Amino acid sequence: MIGWRARLGFLLPPGNPTVEPEMIGLAPEGVSVHFHRMTARGATGSLEGQDERNRMMVDNIGDSIELLAMVSPDVIVLAHTATSYHLGRQGEADLLRRLEESTGRRVITAFGSVVCALERLNVRRLALGTPYSPEVTAQGKSHLETHGLEVVSCANLQGVTNIYDETAERAYRLARLVDRKDAEAVFLSGTGMPTLPVLQLLEQDLGKPVISSASAMMWHALRLAGVGQSIPGYGRLLSLGCSR
Amino acid sequence: MIGWRARLGFLLPPGNPTVEPEMIGLAPEGVSVHFHRMTARGATGSLEGQDERNRMMVDNIGDSIELLAMVSPDVIVLAHTATSYHLGRQGEADLLRRLEESTGRRVITAFGSVVCALERLNVRRLALGTPYSPEVTAQGKSHLETHGLEVVSCANLQGVTNIYDETAERAYRLARLVDRKDAEAVFLSGTGMPTLPVLQLLEQDLGKPVISSASAMMWHALRLAGVGQSIPGYGRLLSLGCSR
Amino acid sequence: MIGWRARLGFLLPPGNPTVEPEMIGLAPEGVSVHFHRMTARGATGSLEGQDERNRMMVDNIGDSIELLAMVSPDVIVLAHTATSYHLGRQGEADLLRRLEESTGRRVITAFGSVVCALERLNVRRLALGTPYSPEVTAQGKSHLETHGLEVVSCANLQGVTNIYDETAERAYRLARLVDRKDAEAVFLSGTGMPTLPVLQLLEQDLGKPVISSASAMMWHALRLAGVGQSIPGYGRLLSLGCSR
Amino acid sequence: MIGWRARLGFLLPPGNPTVEPEMIGLAPEGVSVHFHRMTARGATGSLEGQDERNRMMVDNIGDSIELLAMVSPDVIVLAHTATSYHLGRQGEADLLRRLEESTGRRVITAFGSVVCALERLNVRRLALGTPYSPEVTAQGKSHLETHGLEVVSCANLQGVTNIYDETAERAYRLARLVDRKDAEAVFLSGTGMPTLPVLQLLEQDLGKPVISSASAMMWHALRLAGVGQSIPGYGRLLSLGCSR
Amino acid sequence: MIGWRARLGFLLPPGNPTVEPEMIGLAPEGVSVHFHRMTARGATGSLEGQDERNRMMVDNIGDSIELLAMVSPDVIVLAHTATSYHLGRQGEADLLRRLEESTGRRVITAFGSVVCALERLNVRRLALGTPYSPEVTAQGKSHLETHGLEVVSCANLQGVTNIYDETAERAYRLARLVDRKDAEAVFLSGTGMPTLPVLQLLEQDLGKPVISSASAMMWHALRLAGVGQSIPGYGRLLSLGCSR
Amino acid sequence: MIGWRARLGFLLPPGNPTVEPEMIGLAPEGVSVHFHRMTARGATGSLEGQDERNRMMVDNIGDSIELLAMVSPDVIVLAHTATSYHLGRQGEADLLRRLEESTGRRVITAFGSVVCALERLNVRRLALGTPYSPEVTAQGKSHLETHGLEVVSCANLQGVTNIYDETAERAYRLARLVDRKDAEAVFLSGTGMPTLPVLQLLEQDLGKPVISSASAMMWHALRLAGVGQSIPGYGRLLSLGCSR
Amino acid sequence: MIGWRARLGFLLPPGNPTVEPEMIGLAPEGVSVHFHRMTARGATGSLEGQDERNRMMVDNIGDSIELLAMVSPDVIVLAHTATSYHLGRQGEADLLRRLEESTGRRVITAFGSVVCALERLNVRRLALGTPYSPEVTAQGKSHLETHGLEVVSCANLQGVTNIYDETAERAYRLARLVDRKDAEAVFLSGTGMPTLPVLQLLEQDLGKPVISSASAMMWHALRLAGVGQSIPGYGRLLSLGCSR
Amino acid sequence: MIGWRARLGFLLPPGNPTVEPEMIGLAPEGVSVHFHRMTARGATGSLEGQDERNRMMVDNIGDSIELLAMVSPDVIVLAHTATSYHLGRQGEADLLRRLEESTGRRVITAFGSVVCALERLNVRRLALGTPYSPEVTAQGKSHLETHGLEVVSCANLQGVTNIYDETAERAYRLARLVDRKDAEAVFLSGTGMPTLPVLQLLEQDLGKPVISSASAMMWHALRLAGVGQSIPGYGRLLSLGCSR
Repeated sequence: MIGWRARLGFLLPPGNPTVEPEMIGLAPEGVSVHFHRMTARGATGSLEGQDERNRMMVDNIGDSIELLAMVSPDVIVLAHTATSYHLGRQGEADLLRRLEESTGRRVITAFGSVVCALERLNVRRLALGTPYSPEVTAQGKSHLETHGLEVVSCANLQGVTNIYDETAERAYRLARLVDRKDAEAVFLSGTGMPTLPVLQLLEQDLGKPVISSASAMMWHALRLAGVGQSIPGYGRLLSLGCSR
Repeated sequence: MIGWRARLGFLLPPGNPTVEPEMIGLAPEGVSVHFHRMTARGATGSLEGQDERNRMMVDNIGDSIELLAMVSPDVIVLAHTATSYHLGRQGEADLLRRLEESTGRRVITAFGSVVCALERLNVRRLALGTPYSPEVTAQGKSHLETHGLEVVSCANLQGVTNIYDETAERAYRLARLVDRKDAEAVFLSGTGMPTLPVLQLLEQDLGKPVISSASAMMWHALRLAGVGQSIPGYGRLLSLGCSR
Repeated sequence: MIGWRARLGFLLPPGNPTVEPEMIGLAPEGVSVHFHRMTARGATGSLEGQDERNRMMVDNIGDSIELLAMVSPDVIVLAHTATSYHLGRQGEADLLRRLEESTGRRVITAFGSVVCALERLNVRRLALGTPYSPEVTAQGKSHLETHGLEVVSCANLQGVTNIYDETAERAYRLARLVDRKDAEAVFLSGTGMPTLPVLQLLEQDLGKPVISSASAMMWHALRLAGVGQSIPGYGRLLSLGCSR
Repeated sequence: MIGWRARLGFLLPPGNPTVEPEMIGLAPEGVSVHFHRMTARGATGSLEGQDERNRMMVDNIGDSIELLAMVSPDVIVLAHTATSYHLGRQGEADLLRRLEESTGRRVITAFGSVVCALERLNVRRLALGTPYSPEVTAQGKSHLETHGLEVVSCANLQGVTNIYDETAERAYRLARLVDRKDAEAVFLSGTGMPTLPVLQLLEQDLGKPVISSASAMMWHALRLAGVGQSIPGYGRLLSLGCSR
Repeated sequence: MIGWRARLGFLLPPGNPTVEPEMIGLAPEGVSVHFHRMTARGATGSLEGQDERNRMMVDNIGDSIELLAMVSPDVIVLAHTATSYHLGRQGEADLLRRLEESTGRRVITAFGSVVCALERLNVRRLALGTPYSPEVTAQGKSHLETHGLEVVSCANLQGVTNIYDETAERAYRLARLVDRKDAEAVFLSGTGMPTLPVLQLLEQDLGKPVISSASAMMWHALRLAGVGQSIPGYGRLLSLGCSR
Repeated sequence: MIGWRARLGFLLPPGNPTVEPEMIGLAPEGVSVHFHRMTARGATGSLEGQDERNRMMVDNIGDSIELLAMVSPDVIVLAHTATSYHLGRQGEADLLRRLEESTGRRVITAFGSVVCALERLNVRRLALGTPYSPEVTAQGKSHLETHGLEVVSCANLQGVTNIYDETAERAYRLARLVDRKDAEAVFLSGTGMPTLPVLQLLEQDLGKPVISSASAMMWHALRLAGVGQSIPGYGRLLSLGCSR
Repeated sequence: MIGWRARLGFLLPPGNPTVEPEMIGLAPEGVSVHFHRMTARGATGSLEGQDERNRMMVDNIGDSIELLAMVSPDVIVLAHTATSYHLGRQGEADLLRRLEESTGRRVITAFGSVVCALERLNVRRLALGTPYSPEVTAQGKSHLETHGLEVVSCANLQGVTNIYDETAERAYRLARLVDRKDAEAVFLSGTGMPTLPVLQLLEQDLGKPVISSASAMMWHALRLAGVGQSIPGYGRLLSLGCSR
Repeated sequence: MIGWRARLGFLLPPGNPTVEPEMIGLAPEGVSVHFHRMTARGATGSLEGQDERNRMMVDNIGDSIELLAMVSPDVIVLAHTATSYHLGRQGEADLLRRLEESTGRRVITAFGSVVCALERLNVRRLALGTPYSPEVTAQGKSHLETHGLEVVSCANLQGVTNIYDETAERAYRLARLVDRKDAEAVFLSGTGMPTLPVLQLLEQDLGKPVISSASAMMWHALRLAGVGQSIPGYGRLLSLGCSR
């Protein structure tokens, strides 16, 4: 049976080309990954109009998730970090409760996974790098702070035309840029910017945990689905074993 | 850039768990695969009510494909063989023309890919195996015949509760069952029944080409996207090199 | 010389297709495995008539073991867990003594190996999963209890038509189902249901030892034959080294 | 399902330790091998009393094969070459017909497989090496001749205490010894003497096909079971692909 | 001894980061590669001022090559394609003659290597892709034509800020863009744009030879140094064996 | 982007063939290495006239480094140990300050890297082996002593015609020769004598750290460029992880 | 240079076929092994006349070692354990002193290496297995005792026709036979009986060190030649690293 | 049994360190190699006094070969090319006949193997490179000519202090030096100069067969011992399969 160990479902922005290859590359034996695009229109991936697109995706998310739930995933991940920034802490909690009720499935967000991951790593002070506009970056910082985390350093990637054209090599430079001595970890936000190929190298070079929306949401989904296997090569978070 | 060599998009029935892992396993270096679920409701994967579900998917396909097109695929594949059986030859052609116009992308069907693949392999007489009901199987046979192919043998898998729970091992037995001396090739229909792990073994055991909806649609999509690389291990079709 | 390090003999129910591939896959360098079928008739592997088949196998076991003993195994394993449940603690001990006398070989049972393995792992409280009928499952639970073990959770696999058609993937789900926080280990009973491919994954996902009749009987036979080599990849029991 | 591609059953003399490891090593993906011992008593493997033991095995073969047939093998192999020498051409044919009727399975002998293999390789003149007594060796030669083959050279291994203690290295020397320029192939008789590890080396050194009872019976069983896969590393016979 | 089979020296523009890793990756066993930068100043790699920088490099090339010659290379390569375009056919020939006299070493250009490679591949009609300005691209086309080659298609990469920041993935797209049915081969000009990782994939996808300045100059240097080894993985030119 | 993790530049004596292959072999993923030759004339690599050649290289180093800086290295290494011996402690410090100012890049020497490496390894007493003349060897010893290190044993390689023709095997013998019980480490000076292939073996045979100019300068350059990755296989210095 | 790390010379009985392949298999990178046969006549390898052959080899050893010394080995090993038993403790010491003087090389015996190895492993009580006659076995036991070791168990291999025809598999059985609970280690004497393939397996099965003349003499020779590298796969003695 | 496929014995000059590692590296599975040194004294390996040493080895060869024959080799090789030059065609033939009679074994020379190898490769005109003095080189050339071969080019390695210190890298340069267009093959004489690591590279670079004394004598010995296996990686001679 496909996904006999676990099936994971991912809801993603329609133009996002990154979530699929990154989740595919992480899935361990017996875990299958399934995808569905949320409803949005316009210049997807650009920094312009992100707010409006976020709103449209949230408005239609009930229909979107219904279709994805038909493949019977153990966990469904809302694979878009900025949605959480957009909704705020309470809005995010309300949305998840509503979706879990309608689907009868466990539903989580990329951002919520990051908060869990930082807690698992005992991190309170972190550096933040994003591919967003300065405004959305500031939203992200403040959203982290409402969860009791201290953002000691923060920057957005320069020269972004479209988030979906960015490379993991540029994400590496961004992490190097935002890191500071007093940061206990570095967090690279955004599921559209590729990060997996450089997380391990960054940890070797910075000597501290480095996580991204991608690594955190896979880690969280696997653990909730009862899959405790260590996945080496993407930083210490995913190489942590069973921890229910 | 993700999918720098080519991006392929797949529209699939919402409950189908098979297309994603099978297409992921085939994609060569630099080719990314992206997915979106069509709109349908009810007991997806069961043999009951397939007709109604097909109609619903076709009715909503315009909205579905619009969202998938936002990730800029070079080719979009309608990854559901029975849809073609449902529409008939003319209906299928009309639908594809309409979708290509609305998206500005190349759009193909799993079934159309099978016809091209058989032509490429110079096959006129074939054996057909399906996981469907006898009725849909008969539709499939007749649809093949309207394309000038002779179906010398034909059977549907016995004991199917839900197509999406079937295994490649059962597909192997089915192919062995339908094969006849005068068949020049065996075709396993349906994107929901896994077939990739056994295609090569079947060719070794039967001594003739064996294709499935899955192998045919990836082969066709790659060739139309200009990717001519040979993919070994899944039968002779995919191991054929560049053939534009 | 074949089996220069040790030769192991296995007596199995005639219709059981699982013991041979599972034991073959575990045997280390220099250890050969040899097989002989016990005498039984009827719908082997079905849940019906298991009692009568058990009786027939036990009645004829003297002749069966005589032929297997001719290949000079260091240890002979009675590779059928339910036989022990059928005989009860005293009956099992009597049978083994009688067979050891007649063959001049060390003779053990799958069930006896499980008891030794649990002791080696310091496990007192366990969860039990079986492919049997509810009645035989209850026999198994009570047989474990007569050996001083506490069975904190217990279930039989649903939807079994024939034990010999089951898959390791279903055994994985069964183990996940019966596991409870207060279980120190999970035991999957029955040599007919494949378990070896999922034992390691289960240990990673559950964070505790998971053994099956198959892993326990190979571990026990090797240790009694003086082979202390660690066999990685099938859970911590078999990866334990020399422990005479 | 275990043995989803094919299941092969082997009936072997009770003391024979060689058939199991040799068949296990050859079985391709999806093919399972199952074993049962025939009834015989006494100094199994020694050159003395072989005739009487052969008779006893044949007398009881009906009961033996009934138990093996319960694991539902596609083909059953009588894995004892000397039995055919003992029965003669007609006796062997009668026995096989009787067993096929009682089991409803395809039943073949090691010797019959050798005859088919030589035909497949277009060999008419061969050299013969055996681990038997001179008398049984002469029987073998004459049995080959009744099938229209010319035995241009023939020898039995010197210094045999027990066939089952022989090594593949000694089989290599025997093949080198019996080979003659005008032999088109070399045949090493007997399923008790290991031969698989040296067949490929012998072909490289002698420049002609070299087969044994073991390689021939696996080749024949696979082809009858519809498995046409090439198995490299054991001489050209097994590396021949699909040839139904 | 380092470079016991051959030593190759490369003169490169000072800001060019590409020649070193590309030549390092190609060098076969026993061949060492050595580097020296030519003299130029200013916005190296940008499309502006390329002419002036070319002139400066040529004016100082005598001093540059003297230092590189001290490591005793068997062949020295002027690893800058545009220099040849700048000098014209006669100027290039004069320069090489002068440098060979002063150093006593064999001296070649990247462009001259391309001409030899096309001849070796029997190509007369080609498509040309460059990372240059339209003007320098036109110079390149016309320089190829003075060597009797027909350029049936030609384009320069769009959106170049600095040649040295380009990627092999963009070079892949460029080659796909310029290819035409009547082109017998595709040539990607310029040693600053990485091309080696995509040459083999391009050949698979286009079904014709694809060479770059990098692959041509290594092929030419090796053959002149008497190293005829085939280097697989970078297109058919480098996989051609000994051809003195 | 080439060298997206870090770019390292090396200034080397014109006839030195060793620095390039040794640095190429060590560079981890994402780190590119770039080279430029300093200005010198005459019998490069011989023990004669080394003083005069050192002076000439230092006199012209400003022009040399300007060209290398154009490839934007994160760190530039003056890859010639004897230059430091020639300049003395103060002269070396002055030169580095001047070069860092003119290029705006971090600039280090091979010798300075050795001092840092010994400190990192907590070594105060060492054995020294060189490929130089006795005079330059004495300079090296005294230069080490001005940095507070104790040289308990010291020898120069016998029978050197040209440093650049030496082999790592001879470097191994030299290290074995100079090692003494009270040396805490062995240091092999000189970037012209190959040492990398034998450092690990020497550590295994001598049971203490063994470093060379080559291993020390790569270690130092990587750490200053923020690359903390462990590089196994070349002794414990390079296998030390992140240590900023 | 061949043997640039160390050259080891072995003097062996003329008919001994075992020392060469066993020493060849152990030699690490950069260590070469060289061989010369001592002078003896008659039925080499048989248990008869061993005394006389030993005497003849000792009488001519001066000439033998002179020729071997011409290949400049760092250490010369007298690779015949029984010679030491023949000479006694004082005779052995005298011989070695004489040979070291005449050759100017370090000379050791297989037996002396065993004594050193047991000391290194802190073993005082051992079990002894030999391929010799009972008489020579007794000599061996008593020779061990004169070195202060306690032999708690002792047996010679049964059924030996010629030591040089024995197999490692039989050596495995011998070691299992002689092992006793109170033995701290097992020692397999004799360089003619192969032991290396089974030493690691024996340690896994017995849970204590197992050495042979072969493993001990290579370990000792390497350490005396200054090669401290760990050689995995042959028991803990050879996997001990540098220990001068 | 050691050397169960074949045993090969090599008689070598006492100081020669090259034959052992080169023959060890070539021996295929089941073939063991055994060594004995001939009797000579003085500055072995130097170009001085080679004649006298040759004479001494020949005078004592009867005693030498007697000891080597005790290990029962299938073929004995006189592994010293210059001995044949010294003896002349008739002397060599006489010696071999005498040795074959005294040992009852097949005995061959390195040089005789070269002649057979050239015949097998259909070579009549060759280039010759040696590590000898000019005089011995001339002897070699004339000895080849008495066997009907034409030596179109011929040189001895310059700067040899001791043949046994030479490297395969120098042998590569020598072969490149002596090669001429009209030579059909290159032959590197002498078993003391290592050649195996470069034979394949030379064939790739020169585009013709390149053999050495080492490759020829192993090829010849294997074929005479009935071992026809292809040995890849050392030039086309050894990669030729069975050719009796």
